[in-house]
Amino acid sequence: MLTLYHAPVSPNSRRVWVTLLEKRLEFELVEVKLSGEQFKPDFLAINPFHHIPALVDDGFNVVESLAILDYLEAKYPTPNMLPKDVKDLTIVRMVQMVSVNELLPSIGPLLPRILDLPGEDPEKVNKAEEKITTVLTFFENLLGDRPYFGSNNITLADVVSGTIIPILLRGGISLDKYPKINAWCSRLIGRPAWQNSEATEEAFAEFRSNMLARMQKQ
Amino acid sequence: MLTLYHAPVSPNSRRVWVTLLEKRLEFELVEVKLSGEQFKPDFLAINPFHHIPALVDDGFNVVESLAILDYLEAKYPTPNMLPKDVKDLTIVRMVQMVSVNELLPSIGPLLPRILDLPGEDPEKVNKAEEKITTVLTFFENLLGDRPYFGSNNITLADVVSGTIIPILLRGGISLDKYPKINAWCSRLIGRPAWQNSEATEEAFAEFRSNMLARMQKQ
Repeated sequence: MLTLYHAPVSPNSRRVWVTLLEKRLEFELVEVKLSGEQFKPDFLAINPFHHIPALVDDGFNVVESLAILDYLEAKYPTPNMLPKDVKDLTIVRMVQMVSVNELLPSIGPLLPRILDLPGEDPEKVNKAEEKITTVLTFFENLLGDRPYFGSNNITLADVVSGTIIPILLRGGISLDKYPKINAWCSRLIGRPAWQNSEATEEAFAEFRSNMLARMQKQ
Repeated sequence: MLTLYHAPVSPNSRRVWVTLLEKRLEFELVEVKLSGEQFKPDFLAINPFHHIPALVDDGFNVVESLAILDYLEAKYPTPNMLPKDVKDLTIVRMVQMVSVNELLPSIGPLLPRILDLPGEDPEKVNKAEEKITTVLTFFENLLGDRPYFGSNNITLADVVSGTIIPILLRGGISLDKYPKINAWCSRLIGRPAWQNSEATEEAFAEFRSNMLARMQKQ
């Protein structure tokens, strides 16, 4: 029995959710309210670092979203989501790590715009937009003429980058200058796994009011 | 021909250096002075995100240290540094990601102590020490009774965590309460790959004076 502990607007947990759906696995979805449930003893016993996502598979606890993706790929290899070819596999790994280390941190400065909140810092927004430009140029080149990163079928790279880029679109980032990435993004968003794991407007509204409360506390 | 672009005191580049040595590969080592060389066009052509490490293998550019490790493992699989067993592989992936996401950020608050610099923040040091305790407890459990993470032979997990923990030791962190990790750390430090990739005291002194200059500028 697979249980995914998650939070609805987190791209870190959505990448696992999408992978479970793409692999057509049966799983239970447990929401962890990040207002404090992550510090309860039951959850700390699963993840002592109190982060979502966490996956429990028949008593085996897996933490860290990228480790969970590799666990799912090794344990449930059909459909295959990692290329065998060395260069293709390396494209997947580079896209995963650049998504997490370069693209994800660019969301922070865009959050006021994404959530319609006060406190936008124009200098930080500018730097984030420059970084996003570098990443999208890099991705456009790595995607090349294939429908997915490093493959003709969906990979773990698509899952990681493809659950971050839709958030940037909400922040007014345009993909018009990146025709390959633009088509790739539409292709992903149309997949049932994306459609069925999209955060509701209610979840975004709850995230927004939590952010607002935190800002007012400071 | 393999070329590793690196900086001597960076654990991110040392993990690649150690892997190249463990795999007994021939490579050229090029130091990138992080005072500005990373922004030169020649280096940006290799890594548009201007970070070390970067690896070039016969014209193929690989960025992001964890992607580079997986590239080396796929391209040069002997000796094997990733377990085949699903749970063992997952242990390796969890240790890699927890090392990068939990352990590495704990170094920051300890830097004044490591480098004998002013500006220690007791509250941040305290939080870092608590996090390190959680990580070491988690690692002690995952290591179990084997000499390396997930294997009887050295893995990519040992390379990643084993190039961070020695820095913590310089910051006064003790492994006495973690007998398995303590023995494991001694085992790694004694390996030729560790001995031959250790930053010199001169490299640490240069890093220290760069840090000091940056602090005085603020």
